[in-house]
Amino acid sequence: MEERLTSFFVTRQAIVEPLGPVFVDAARTLEDFVIRGGKRTRPSFAWTGWLGAGRSPEDPEAEAVLTACAALELVQACALIHDDIIDSSRTRRGFPTVHVDYEQRHRDRHWAGDSGHWGTSVAILIGDLALAWADDMTRDAGLPADAAARFAPVWAAMRTEVLGGQLLDIHGEAESDETVSAALRINRYKTAAYTIERPLHLGAALAGADPDLIAAYREFGTDIGIAFQLRDDLLGVFGDPAITGKPSGDDLREGKHTVLIAEALQRADDTDPAAATLIRTSLGTDVTPDQVAELRTLLAELGAVDAVEARITSLTDQALTALDASTATPDAKRQLRAMALAATARAY
Amino acid sequence: MEERLTSFFVTRQAIVEPLGPVFVDAARTLEDFVIRGGKRTRPSFAWTGWLGAGRSPEDPEAEAVLTACAALELVQACALIHDDIIDSSRTRRGFPTVHVDYEQRHRDRHWAGDSGHWGTSVAILIGDLALAWADDMTRDAGLPADAAARFAPVWAAMRTEVLGGQLLDIHGEAESDETVSAALRINRYKTAAYTIERPLHLGAALAGADPDLIAAYREFGTDIGIAFQLRDDLLGVFGDPAITGKPSGDDLREGKHTVLIAEALQRADDTDPAAATLIRTSLGTDVTPDQVAELRTLLAELGAVDAVEARITSLTDQALTALDASTATPDAKRQLRAMALAATARAY
Repeated sequence: MEERLTSFFVTRQAIVEPLGPVFVDAARTLEDFVIRGGKRTRPSFAWTGWLGAGRSPEDPEAEAVLTACAALELVQACALIHDDIIDSSRTRRGFPTVHVDYEQRHRDRHWAGDSGHWGTSVAILIGDLALAWADDMTRDAGLPADAAARFAPVWAAMRTEVLGGQLLDIHGEAESDETVSAALRINRYKTAAYTIERPLHLGAALAGADPDLIAAYREFGTDIGIAFQLRDDLLGVFGDPAITGKPSGDDLREGKHTVLIAEALQRADDTDPAAATLIRTSLGTDVTPDQVAELRTLLAELGAVDAVEARITSLTDQALTALDASTATPDAKRQLRAMALAATARAY
Repeated sequence: MEERLTSFFVTRQAIVEPLGPVFVDAARTLEDFVIRGGKRTRPSFAWTGWLGAGRSPEDPEAEAVLTACAALELVQACALIHDDIIDSSRTRRGFPTVHVDYEQRHRDRHWAGDSGHWGTSVAILIGDLALAWADDMTRDAGLPADAAARFAPVWAAMRTEVLGGQLLDIHGEAESDETVSAALRINRYKTAAYTIERPLHLGAALAGADPDLIAAYREFGTDIGIAFQLRDDLLGVFGDPAITGKPSGDDLREGKHTVLIAEALQRADDTDPAAATLIRTSLGTDVTPDQVAELRTLLAELGAVDAVEARITSLTDQALTALDASTATPDAKRQLRAMALAATARAY
């Protein structure tokens, strides 16, 4: 996967270099961002989906498929770079975010204009470049025409869904939509479809899998994807900073409208208005460790934690049932089961 | 072309509607933006390029080619929506820009958070959607596999070049790069390659044109594209507001580092330091009509206007010579000659 990504960036040089050093540098920023980043979750699900449909790494198409799967990391680069602007995030993976990096360069050089706006402008363009290149990478992958034709509509759906999920997310934040259904819908599109369901579907489509396997993958991917996000929501409040790498209770400070919070508010509105007020007034503020502890107790006492755990269990069961009943290869079933449990297991 | 665009948006409904009304509304914003906008310059050049390689509207591939050409309008939608954020533009074609539109909705609804940042966030995502959909539209166009394969590298180059040109542009502004060569390079990639050279090249590639015709189109497109931008630079200072639709001298107020300004500064630095200082201190400020008049006189006296006119003439001559010597059909030559003269002719 790494080799596929590195090779792709080499192929861009012929288009990038004629524009001169400024653009070469921007392309290098994108390359560094992609190469140093992440767990390659989406390409892994896509590749496993392809293998699980009965294909083999010895298959003559394998190289092309691997390249098309790796291109998901470029979509992800666009999503992260633009998301970091939207969320005003200053760091990612221990490095300054792209917009902050360029803001700093602008400031260091005492250039004309507003440094913050300029950094954002550069990061918008570098994110766009990642999205365009994701596409170029799949076109250049060398897929046979029939595989490319099956790939295209799933690729289209995935990109549209993740952008739609992000739009729903920022609308939900702005509108202060506190419903469980709104939070679940955002999970469905922003996380589940984009991270697991559609990558598996892409792999299956590339393999020319039958509709039953595709349906099973999609059910598995949707359920595990939502369960994964629910686990992430719990970790955002209850997680051990030593394990999550984020300050304890960070989601509370960011004021995220998670399913966990929605479940808590729904219950508190019915049974304990004072608790509801406390949650609403604390959320999105710079809560102290003591307040975090108090909110944790409250979320547990209201039954929100149990409700979310129950959802995770039922979604995971449903997903594994669909997987077991599918025609995926035994190896892929083992692999996907392990990935599912890793993504949804308790770790706090 | 309009029909192709409208039909494409209809095909997106099946992916958009499941996400609910918020996303349906965002997709509608993009559709309105595309449908009401512009002169379809890029699709027209691409289509003319295809016809000029000896193809006909009766050709069985014509429908697919028209669709692929129309997709350029979606790339352009992304470029404009994101450019308007970068340039902090408040209106476009008499409507609020997308980020201002959403900023206003946020404010009107008294939603949580910063309205300006939220409007920008939505516009980033809608621009991304346009870029992803541009791509989907070309994949769904129904091009034969060989035409699609010839199309892909040109499509890739065009998107990379326009993003690179925009990056060079904002770098040049920030660095206050005053050289003629920097301004010409931005024209080359941000305008010429994106607006004329690559669209013609795309048309030729779709047609399977021979390398000589492609080379002629590219020379013609580059030269006319740069000449077009130079004419635009002159109009930005000398244009009649009744014709250009923009206040007189608007480019001076915006402080654009055009070739015209670069030519003037280069001359003034050599011969008239006081004039150079006047230009530098006026540029990017809210100059009065009297100051605009004074600057106009200065630019003319320094010989910058003549220098730019001479460049336009020589580029246009070169372009038309390449076109005449090419194997393009007589109809396409007539058409492209007319388009070239319209794009570069004096109108002030």
